[in-house]
Amino acid sequence: MREFKDRNEWALILGGSSGLGLATAKKLAQHGLNICIVHRNPRLQQEAITREFEFIKQNGIQFKSFNCDAFKPEKRAEVINEFKLLLRDTDKIKTLVHSVAKGNLKPMVSDQNIELKNDDFALTIQAMGISLYDWFKSLFDANLFSKDARIISFTSEGNSKAWQNYAAVSAAKVTLEAITRNIALEFALHGIKANCIQAGVTDTASLRLIPGSDEIINRSEKRNPNKRLTTPEDVANVVYLLIKDEASWITGSIIPVDGGEHLS
Amino acid sequence: MREFKDRNEWALILGGSSGLGLATAKKLAQHGLNICIVHRNPRLQQEAITREFEFIKQNGIQFKSFNCDAFKPEKRAEVINEFKLLLRDTDKIKTLVHSVAKGNLKPMVSDQNIELKNDDFALTIQAMGISLYDWFKSLFDANLFSKDARIISFTSEGNSKAWQNYAAVSAAKVTLEAITRNIALEFALHGIKANCIQAGVTDTASLRLIPGSDEIINRSEKRNPNKRLTTPEDVANVVYLLIKDEASWITGSIIPVDGGEHLS
Amino acid sequence: MREFKDRNEWALILGGSSGLGLATAKKLAQHGLNICIVHRNPRLQQEAITREFEFIKQNGIQFKSFNCDAFKPEKRAEVINEFKLLLRDTDKIKTLVHSVAKGNLKPMVSDQNIELKNDDFALTIQAMGISLYDWFKSLFDANLFSKDARIISFTSEGNSKAWQNYAAVSAAKVTLEAITRNIALEFALHGIKANCIQAGVTDTASLRLIPGSDEIINRSEKRNPNKRLTTPEDVANVVYLLIKDEASWITGSIIPVDGGEHLS
Amino acid sequence: MREFKDRNEWALILGGSSGLGLATAKKLAQHGLNICIVHRNPRLQQEAITREFEFIKQNGIQFKSFNCDAFKPEKRAEVINEFKLLLRDTDKIKTLVHSVAKGNLKPMVSDQNIELKNDDFALTIQAMGISLYDWFKSLFDANLFSKDARIISFTSEGNSKAWQNYAAVSAAKVTLEAITRNIALEFALHGIKANCIQAGVTDTASLRLIPGSDEIINRSEKRNPNKRLTTPEDVANVVYLLIKDEASWITGSIIPVDGGEHLS
Repeated sequence: MREFKDRNEWALILGGSSGLGLATAKKLAQHGLNICIVHRNPRLQQEAITREFEFIKQNGIQFKSFNCDAFKPEKRAEVINEFKLLLRDTDKIKTLVHSVAKGNLKPMVSDQNIELKNDDFALTIQAMGISLYDWFKSLFDANLFSKDARIISFTSEGNSKAWQNYAAVSAAKVTLEAITRNIALEFALHGIKANCIQAGVTDTASLRLIPGSDEIINRSEKRNPNKRLTTPEDVANVVYLLIKDEASWITGSIIPVDGGEHLS
Repeated sequence: MREFKDRNEWALILGGSSGLGLATAKKLAQHGLNICIVHRNPRLQQEAITREFEFIKQNGIQFKSFNCDAFKPEKRAEVINEFKLLLRDTDKIKTLVHSVAKGNLKPMVSDQNIELKNDDFALTIQAMGISLYDWFKSLFDANLFSKDARIISFTSEGNSKAWQNYAAVSAAKVTLEAITRNIALEFALHGIKANCIQAGVTDTASLRLIPGSDEIINRSEKRNPNKRLTTPEDVANVVYLLIKDEASWITGSIIPVDGGEHLS
Repeated sequence: MREFKDRNEWALILGGSSGLGLATAKKLAQHGLNICIVHRNPRLQQEAITREFEFIKQNGIQFKSFNCDAFKPEKRAEVINEFKLLLRDTDKIKTLVHSVAKGNLKPMVSDQNIELKNDDFALTIQAMGISLYDWFKSLFDANLFSKDARIISFTSEGNSKAWQNYAAVSAAKVTLEAITRNIALEFALHGIKANCIQAGVTDTASLRLIPGSDEIINRSEKRNPNKRLTTPEDVANVVYLLIKDEASWITGSIIPVDGGEHLS
Repeated sequence: MREFKDRNEWALILGGSSGLGLATAKKLAQHGLNICIVHRNPRLQQEAITREFEFIKQNGIQFKSFNCDAFKPEKRAEVINEFKLLLRDTDKIKTLVHSVAKGNLKPMVSDQNIELKNDDFALTIQAMGISLYDWFKSLFDANLFSKDARIISFTSEGNSKAWQNYAAVSAAKVTLEAITRNIALEFALHGIKANCIQAGVTDTASLRLIPGSDEIINRSEKRNPNKRLTTPEDVANVVYLLIKDEASWITGSIIPVDGGEHLS
């Protein structure tokens, strides 16, 4: 059951203080992975987050968190340096999980609302897309990955559909997928496997920020063949499957985890 | 480790005497699933197959095999009836694995070889495609599936590519996928999850039957980012992942298991 | 405007007496193609159909129709033989258009309705899928295609989605697409181009046969970015584009013609 | 033949001085569209380009070119202002064609070469991706599009494949496609249709900049079912088809124009 215990392996989770990232941290800790969470939260939320982190620690694993702006290169360097100091000799990163939701949701054309601009694309693609490469490459260059490491990030059906207000996030998601494919190709012989999970509509804080999220939730419940939304735990479960030894031949793929939502 | 032990669950594997099917039987038996294999082999091969089956039985699980023509409705009915007699009260089928390779490989146009005809399509689609539905539906109607069952079949990149001589198999594979999607949709509320594994080029007896298989093997080794072919064990590993509890939200999907071969 | 006039080229349209096929016949006749329609209609509908055909003939083109069961090999042979007798020396087929809707719509599981069976798959795949190959190959073997011929058939979003009752048609559509890809590959050097048009939901007699078609129509009108259904003329327009000289480098493709319906 | 003559419609072509853009300008001018080309070339190339532009003008259409850095917002504003002054009362833009190739090709990991960095992604995505939105939106806000306008850009198989050194361009291409889908959705009721052409490997100056382009060319010639590369004229032909009235129901799509190259 606790198959990763005593293997000196870590999961580094970007955006691990809520939603898919937090659920992933919990699941992986249960299976014995040490957890490092990089997140960005205001002081007001710190107490609730600390409780979650304490819960994770009860699995008897190593735990470390960084509350900072993970998108700044110098912050990233600081975090990685500090993280390295924590590691014992044989410690390595088994999985980098990218669960970053920080996008600008605006209409391309509107009489009433602010319209989508170049910057909205650029910032969203940086935060939700290219940041995967930045973190992956920095950790790789620091020689921190295990010999059979797994890079996992989260995409959505917005990779092939068009939704009102969602253009910048859609572009970020497909960028994330393109980066994942090239990591899978170019680092295959370094033992890296990289995949995206295409999660169904999940009732998270990020979803609630989308204008009209109530309607999205309502429609998804009806549309999903299993007649419920995706939960963060559904997705965390598959992250766990993807880091198991048996998943080592899956790479460069986009795996729907949505109870069949993409079928309808 | 042996998580399916004592859960009174079976894997029914169509085409389980070689290739992906046999590797799957071995993997699932290791994890405690009881195994029922339906296969079709001439007497000449029986000895070698028996040795494989003995090996599987050493896992201390229930084992049953049927050597017959699984495509005939009356044979199917016989097998299912006989299988039912084996089952103890609470025994159920956890997974139906469809690993049937019986297709006609012919060119559409040729001066020298026999050309592809209507019958080649019809027979290949029946054997490699619709047979999934026939078996699934008969087992479902006999109330043999567990409350959380997994239907798994094998497809290939031929689902979106066109290869010389491969038209009938290609049509069978996409039919298999279409059936998988509709099973996922229509039986979701019956607890059924259905997925296809898109295996990379695997060096099996079936592959060796394809004219020009040497060149396919050679090209795939070069093309694969991991510089080797897919093995039956690579695929069996993912069948195992897909029947675990954690995979219950994956349904209606096509999952590449190919070391990234589809990327190039 | 009448670019195909005096080029001695024919369009042979399977299923040309209604819906997409009839609209295609009208459009292509306007541009000077001679028209041969193969259809299957009861005597009751003949009068209305004759009016449509008279309308087509007013374009001053050659016209021929066959009312018969196009799926029987011997009927196909008869039609082709009779058609050949019509042709002048230099006459060739520019385009074969496959617009056949003859599928069995049944649920996979139901307490009240007849459930989908093997035969439903087999018959639907034959009628809506493999028949493309049968006709194409017979016409090719009879040396009837022009040096730059276009094979066009109609698919739907059911090629990647799962809809209740639609499994057999879905399987037929993906079979049609697989056949199209292999024709594109294997006959490329014979000058053949083959493509599928993925039409949006179109209000035709075929659609009205689907249980729940009212709801489909209603939902499609809302969902379509252009807020209306696809018309047969929308699709016929693109058939016309695909037979123009400028489309000669498009082959093996699936082209959505749906006003963006697939985006949402 | 010259169907756009006297319709007071323009094609605005970004990157129209070479490759796909120039071929498009020539094709559309032949059919009577007025041409505005925005390009960026050093003085050394100006003479050759001028000859090409003179050739285009011989079609008796309006012609204007701007040699400037089209990616700078202030330059874009200048160009648009100057272009507006050219227009007669009823002149409108029928099509915006985005043919911009300005990407950074680097390996993600290398001992010898400079490795891909954040900036390479950011700049390439800006130049080859987001610039489509910037230009489209500026022209839309300036009310310059006709009531039935067509936005066309060029993508490649790199939208789903991973190629060595190509990660940044791949990300830019999928961004372009995501933007195209959202334009198709959000501007449908403004009469805008937006599509991408997925061109096969084309022997252009841009291709020659890719390390190993000889091998790409060699492999593509073999792999293509039609045994030749794609030409700029092949692609220009389909741009022409996509701006015709008959294409008005095609939107939000990616259309392969590659002689079937994507099939193999």
